[in-house]
Amino acid sequence: VSPSEKSGARLIALTSAVESRGSLSAATVGAELPFTPGRMFVVYDVPAGEPRGGHAHRACHQFLVAVHGSLVVDWHDGSRWHEASLDNPTVGLHIPPGIWGVQRAHSPGAVLVVMASHPYDRADYVSDFDEFCGLFGSVPDR
Amino acid sequence: VSPSEKSGARLIALTSAVESRGSLSAATVGAELPFTPGRMFVVYDVPAGEPRGGHAHRACHQFLVAVHGSLVVDWHDGSRWHEASLDNPTVGLHIPPGIWGVQRAHSPGAVLVVMASHPYDRADYVSDFDEFCGLFGSVPDR
Repeated sequence: VSPSEKSGARLIALTSAVESRGSLSAATVGAELPFTPGRMFVVYDVPAGEPRGGHAHRACHQFLVAVHGSLVVDWHDGSRWHEASLDNPTVGLHIPPGIWGVQRAHSPGAVLVVMASHPYDRADYVSDFDEFCGLFGSVPDR
Repeated sequence: VSPSEKSGARLIALTSAVESRGSLSAATVGAELPFTPGRMFVVYDVPAGEPRGGHAHRACHQFLVAVHGSLVVDWHDGSRWHEASLDNPTVGLHIPPGIWGVQRAHSPGAVLVVMASHPYDRADYVSDFDEFCGLFGSVPDR
């Protein structure tokens, strides 16, 4: 993606039924979930004060849901930093390619489920922030 | 699916890295996850003693991961009952179509993530056990 084609990360409400007999939150491909998953993963047992992430993807979309506990996601879209707290299963954060993301401030027992559009591919990661800025940073208008 | 084409439910180990800085369990489509998801949903805040499920699907595959806490899944494959405890994020239970499934014995805080092959479709549910046996029950050899 080039900076001009890129869209930002955004919070998306899942379809949820919160009921006394148990609650359900759902994301359907093409509706709440804006891509077809090629992989899902679960991040858990993260110690307090241990940030995760700190990279961007060249092609991979991600959709993050905090299904237990809470955490904070910081992301940079090439222009500036943004922040959101994920603290319940009724919302997902769509992070498209070209966004630098960090997860931090995990509560005890926090569980993050991530749907990814692609299988794991080390070459899809941009793990150096200066390189990220060069690839995805906004060029000021002249 | 006809009874003769049907395969049973089975437990599948995810690819996991259990580490002191946090743990990760992953399922890639075509590897641990035997179908492409069309929907994901999260079941949580289920009271103790409140069973969930109690139906089969005609076409939809499901892949269940207990990402926090634990629960028990009972399933009937048309011949007999089976049971598995799901109590950590490193394993998934693949339930193909034509299997009757029930989730029960949720621990406090249990969170179940389900990847489903199809969007929600009420017509895909078989919610009457006698009908299930007629559709998917094994015919004894004569």
